[in-house]
Amino acid sequence: MKTKQDLTPIAGGGLLDRRLFLKKGLTFSAVVLSSDALANSDLIRPESSKIAGKPFLNYGVPSEYERQTIRWTMANSMADGNGVSWTPLQDLEGMITPNGLHFERHHNGVPTIDPKQHQLLIHGMVNQSLLFEVEDLLRYPMTSLFCFIECGGNSNAAWRKKPIQTKLGYFHGMASCSEWTGVPLRLLLNEAKIKGRAKWLIAEGADASLMNISLPLEKALDDCIIALYQNGERIRPENGYPLRLIVPGWEGVLNVKWLRRLHLTNRPVMARNETSKYTELMPSGKARQFTFVMEAKSLITQPSFGHKLDRKGFYEISGLAWSGRGKIKKVEVSADGGKTWAQAQLQDPVLSRCFTRFRIPWQWQGKTAVLKSRATDETGYVQPERDALIKARGSHGYFHYNAIVSWKINPEGRISHVYA
Amino acid sequence: MKTKQDLTPIAGGGLLDRRLFLKKGLTFSAVVLSSDALANSDLIRPESSKIAGKPFLNYGVPSEYERQTIRWTMANSMADGNGVSWTPLQDLEGMITPNGLHFERHHNGVPTIDPKQHQLLIHGMVNQSLLFEVEDLLRYPMTSLFCFIECGGNSNAAWRKKPIQTKLGYFHGMASCSEWTGVPLRLLLNEAKIKGRAKWLIAEGADASLMNISLPLEKALDDCIIALYQNGERIRPENGYPLRLIVPGWEGVLNVKWLRRLHLTNRPVMARNETSKYTELMPSGKARQFTFVMEAKSLITQPSFGHKLDRKGFYEISGLAWSGRGKIKKVEVSADGGKTWAQAQLQDPVLSRCFTRFRIPWQWQGKTAVLKSRATDETGYVQPERDALIKARGSHGYFHYNAIVSWKINPEGRISHVYA
Repeated sequence: MKTKQDLTPIAGGGLLDRRLFLKKGLTFSAVVLSSDALANSDLIRPESSKIAGKPFLNYGVPSEYERQTIRWTMANSMADGNGVSWTPLQDLEGMITPNGLHFERHHNGVPTIDPKQHQLLIHGMVNQSLLFEVEDLLRYPMTSLFCFIECGGNSNAAWRKKPIQTKLGYFHGMASCSEWTGVPLRLLLNEAKIKGRAKWLIAEGADASLMNISLPLEKALDDCIIALYQNGERIRPENGYPLRLIVPGWEGVLNVKWLRRLHLTNRPVMARNETSKYTELMPSGKARQFTFVMEAKSLITQPSFGHKLDRKGFYEISGLAWSGRGKIKKVEVSADGGKTWAQAQLQDPVLSRCFTRFRIPWQWQGKTAVLKSRATDETGYVQPERDALIKARGSHGYFHYNAIVSWKINPEGRISHVYA
Repeated sequence: MKTKQDLTPIAGGGLLDRRLFLKKGLTFSAVVLSSDALANSDLIRPESSKIAGKPFLNYGVPSEYERQTIRWTMANSMADGNGVSWTPLQDLEGMITPNGLHFERHHNGVPTIDPKQHQLLIHGMVNQSLLFEVEDLLRYPMTSLFCFIECGGNSNAAWRKKPIQTKLGYFHGMASCSEWTGVPLRLLLNEAKIKGRAKWLIAEGADASLMNISLPLEKALDDCIIALYQNGERIRPENGYPLRLIVPGWEGVLNVKWLRRLHLTNRPVMARNETSKYTELMPSGKARQFTFVMEAKSLITQPSFGHKLDRKGFYEISGLAWSGRGKIKKVEVSADGGKTWAQAQLQDPVLSRCFTRFRIPWQWQGKTAVLKSRATDETGYVQPERDALIKARGSHGYFHYNAIVSWKINPEGRISHVYA
C-alpha cells in the first residue's frame, strides 16, 4: 500500500528512503491493459517467434541493437596506437566491466604476442635471476581479486575552467572493474630471493614503447599479482595478453600490460610516466610525485549527460563509487546541489578497491535539480567538492581528479554537466 | 624458508596445507639464469616491441592465440538452433564466466529481437494486466546479484555406465556464473496486484519454440529478477536479449530467455519441460517432478581430462563449487580416491548461489593418483559419491546429476575420467 508517509522525501529535491523501491510496488510506467486489449495482446505471437532463430556461436557477441555501447576511442592521428579508449559507464549497470569494454591507454599500440615466445624476467637486486615461461606461470598457485583499474589521468577534463558537455564515459570512463586471476607477485619475488637493499621494482612491458614504471617493493610484496585471466578468461590483447601486473587501488599506469621484466633496484627509474607526466606542481610551488593511490570517487551514471527524463515521477538514481584505499563505506546523494544529502543503498557485495554500485529512489517534480554523489571510504576519507580539490591542488592539475560531479536537470528533463 | 614440516602432507597422495602456497616461495619451474645468460637476456628486445602495435577497437576480442577457448556446441543436424553449447570450464579461472562463453540451451535458435518491438506482459490472476516496454523497465529500480545458472541436464553423461572420456567442459559445462542486473520481479508483480488464489507463474519466451515453464509464485516473489544486464552490459542475444528471467539457484530451464509473458495461475501449466522432460522415475516406482533446486556440486577444473602433468612436483589443484541452496561452506579434496580428504582454500568473496573457486596445494610424486572434490553448503548438504546418488535415484536418471567427479592420473601424468 502506498501511504503518504512512505513517500516523504528524506532530503531536498525529492530523494526518498533508500530501501523504498525494494519494498514497495510503485507505479512507474507500465501500461494497464483493458480486458479487450488483453484478449488481443494475449494472442499476439511476437515476430521473433515466427521464424527459427540463429544457430550457436562458439564465442558470443552483443546484440546488433546495442552497437552504440562501445569504447569511445581517441588516438594520435600520426600514430594510431597512441591514445585512449573510454568505458561507456553511462550505458552499463552492476559492477563488472565486460572485457570488450575495459578502458585502454596505449603508448604505441597493442602488440600481438605469441605466449610461447613471451617470458617474464626477474633480475637486479635478487640472489637468483629468474626467467618464467607463460606455461610455467599457468602452473603456479593463483589468487583472484575483484578490483577497479583507473587511469591517473581519468576525469582530467574536469580540471578545465568550464564544464565539458559530453557523456559520462567520455571523461570519467578511464576506469573499469574486473575479476583478475593470477600469481601473487610475492611468490615469484621470494623465489628469486630479494636482496636487503632492494626498495623498488621497475616493471617493463613488451610493447613498442617498452613502457616502464617504478613500484615500491613493499606494495609489490603486499597484494600485487601477475594476472593471466580477466573475468574468467585469459586476458585480452588490449589488456596485456599474456601477462599484466595488477597493482590494486593504485594508478592505472602501474598496472603494466604485456609485462616482460621486473628489475629490483634501490631507487626509482625516473621514467617518463613518473617525471614528465604524473608529477604536478602544487600551489605551494612544490611538486608532487609518486602519488600512487587513487582516492575515493563516485559518479552518478543514471541519469547523466545524454540521458533525458521524459516525464515527472519516480526514478532510481544509480552510480558507481570506489576507493584505492579499501571499501566504500557510504555514498550520499544530493538532488539540490549539495544543500541536503541522503544516504544511498550500496549493492552487495561491497569489496575492497572495487566498483561499488549505489542506488537511491528519487521523485522528480519536473523542476530544476542538481544531482551530486559523495563517496566516503572505510578510512574515513570523503570525496571533496571541486572547490576544495582546486584549493588544495591548484588549477593546473591534470592527474588524480576525484571531486564530486554535478548533473543539472532542467525542467524539460535535459541534463548538463555543471560545476556546482 | 622451506622446512620439512611445512611440506608434510595433510592427506594422502601429497595434499598440502591450503595456506602453504600463499605464504611460501616454493620453486615451481622458473629457469635460474647465469650472469652470462642474464647479460644476454637483459638486452634482448622482444619481437613484439620492435613494431608498432595494433590500433584501438571499439569492442575487444580475445587473443588469436586463445582460439581453442570456445563454447563446444552440439546442435540437431536438422534444426541448427536446437541444441546446447558448453562453457569451457577447463580453460577458465576465477568465478566469472565471460559473456561470450556462457553456456546455451536453445530449442529453436536465438531470436533477433529489436527491443523497441519487445514487450513483457503480466496477466492472469492479477487485478490489473500490465504491459511493459523495455525502455520502461530500464527506468525501474534495479538490483544486481552474482549467481550461477546450471542446466538441469548438466553432467548427464555421468549417468552412463562407463565414464565418458572428454574435457570437463564438454560434460559439466552447462553451468556458468555472471553478475545479473535487473528489476526485482516482486516489484512488477506487486504493481499488477496479485489475486489471492494465484500460486504459480507461467513464464514464456519470445523465441520460435515459445518455451514456457511453471514457477511457484513464492519463489518469484522472493529473489527472482527480470535481468537486463549481464556482467555489466546488456544481455547478449543468446542469453535472452532483451529480457531474461533469473531464478537464482534453480534449474537453468526456469531462467526463461527472451521473456515476453508472465501468466499468474493457480496450477502449473504442465509444459514439455516439466512433464516429458524433467520428470524422472525413481527406484521406488514413483516419479519426481518440479525438482527445482540445483544441489551442491564441485568440480576440479585444474588438472582435469585433457591436461597433462609433465613432471613431478608442486601443483595447485583448482576447481569450482556451487549450491542452489546458498553459500559453499567447505570443499574437501582427496588425492587418494577418497580414502583421505583435506580442506581446500575458498577464494573470497564466497557468495550465495554463486561459483566459488577453491584451491589446494599438491605435491605429485609421479605415481597413480585419483583426485576428487566434495562440496558442503551452508545448509549442511554434502555432495554425494556416485554410488550413493545412483542408490537414491536409480540408474535411469538424466537430470540433476551432482555426484563427486574423479580424475585418475597415471604415472605418465595422463588424466582419465573414472568412477572411483
